[in-house]
Amino acid sequence: MIGKAFAPAHITGFFYVHEDDDPLRMGSCGCGFTLEEGVCTTAWPAGTTEVYLDGKPSDASTTRTVIDLLADRPIHVESELDFPAGGGFGVSGAGAFSTALALNQALGLGKTYNDLSYIAHRAEVENRTGLGDVAGMSLGGVVVRLKPGTPFTLDRIPTAPREIYCVHFGPISTKSVLSDPKEKALINEAGKRCLKELLKKPTFENFMRLSREFSVKTGLISEKAMDAVEAVEAFGGMASMAMLGDTVFSTIPDGLSRFGKVIKSKISMAGARLL
Amino acid sequence: MIGKAFAPAHITGFFYVHEDDDPLRMGSCGCGFTLEEGVCTTAWPAGTTEVYLDGKPSDASTTRTVIDLLADRPIHVESELDFPAGGGFGVSGAGAFSTALALNQALGLGKTYNDLSYIAHRAEVENRTGLGDVAGMSLGGVVVRLKPGTPFTLDRIPTAPREIYCVHFGPISTKSVLSDPKEKALINEAGKRCLKELLKKPTFENFMRLSREFSVKTGLISEKAMDAVEAVEAFGGMASMAMLGDTVFSTIPDGLSRFGKVIKSKISMAGARLL
Repeated sequence: MIGKAFAPAHITGFFYVHEDDDPLRMGSCGCGFTLEEGVCTTAWPAGTTEVYLDGKPSDASTTRTVIDLLADRPIHVESELDFPAGGGFGVSGAGAFSTALALNQALGLGKTYNDLSYIAHRAEVENRTGLGDVAGMSLGGVVVRLKPGTPFTLDRIPTAPREIYCVHFGPISTKSVLSDPKEKALINEAGKRCLKELLKKPTFENFMRLSREFSVKTGLISEKAMDAVEAVEAFGGMASMAMLGDTVFSTIPDGLSRFGKVIKSKISMAGARLL
Repeated sequence: MIGKAFAPAHITGFFYVHEDDDPLRMGSCGCGFTLEEGVCTTAWPAGTTEVYLDGKPSDASTTRTVIDLLADRPIHVESELDFPAGGGFGVSGAGAFSTALALNQALGLGKTYNDLSYIAHRAEVENRTGLGDVAGMSLGGVVVRLKPGTPFTLDRIPTAPREIYCVHFGPISTKSVLSDPKEKALINEAGKRCLKELLKKPTFENFMRLSREFSVKTGLISEKAMDAVEAVEAFGGMASMAMLGDTVFSTIPDGLSRFGKVIKSKISMAGARLL
């Protein structure tokens, strides 16, 4: 049997990290949002386990961990990515989550949606590719992650499905940023403050404002990305950096085009699902 | 300022009731699903508080409770309903939830999505118009309600956004069914068993099978509705009764047309949201 599933892209605006030896308890708190596009995965039992990303054989370590955790036989997995990996779009998490849903269907594993999301989260944490994206994409919308790890404890910022514009400069390794203790201390201090401030005034505008503040205070934003954020602001829009990728997300397209190809998307209100 | 929000219709397949003096702790467990259509509400401050349903002034007690709980000034509320009230589509809950979201926006109340869903749930319980619909429509999809009341403790049955067909015969009063202790005992026994069975095999087909079993074991299904369910089954489909309304929902349209107007809809993966 064939399983087919979709998980939306997820952009985090700000976050802080909770370390734990148990990958199910480790994770990040913070706020981010899902997009209409993401990763679409098809899976079926095969002679050998292979993972294809956009038609090419791939290591895709996080997706392979999901296969190891769920499948008792070799599996062929094909994922189509709407966004570049490493760009702060949560592509590794979306790949893992859509694979978990597709495998559950293909093999009749009898897991619930939460079960599968926790497996995808565990695979992300074990591979250090993400800490909170799967939680965000399990709900959809502008998602607040109130507690780290599983079971996910989430809330939402009430939002309409509004348009979002992105420019992507290049990848950032989540693993390398999070392995610098000084950087992590900065992130955790700023992230905790932003979450507190967001819950005092849970609006999308405040989320955007706090995300920008976070990207500057942590020093994570690149010079080029900062220029793009300021260009958007000159047109009256709001923008910040996708955590963690050298990507700017914005409420308006104006001012972005001179920095690169502008990707137009929309905040999605739905989480991952079968297709 | 004007607030505008949407909450999806929600059909429960089976449930059981947890009574509590605290309306936030009272609620039902069970399983149901949200639909693409629902209730769209617009709200703005006005000289006197008025609620309009489909253009007509209405009592709309549950929506008025939400206004009482949230607004410090008179509010004009207009809701457009895609489904009939009392038909088991969760229309009162969708009206209450969309009103809560719209009021939050219109008055800048600074509540989170969860806050607003809990207020809508409380209004439903206080008016005895529903016990679990708001929880289901806070997430979207095929939603399992694992614990009664707030905070909502939910899971999902992995499902694609598939088509659903309904025939509506007439209203059933949730209040009157739940005030019969003998009926409630039957419901609780059957509902608990169904939830346990569903979690052993969390598939959409099993949800449909258990919903049908529940509607028969509790004696809630009308003769006409049972005829419609059997007509669908003769064509190889699955069907049951919407809890609580004299409404049949089905996986296929075949066999339904001779029982009344067939409403075509689709399972939605998204919950309530601003517009």
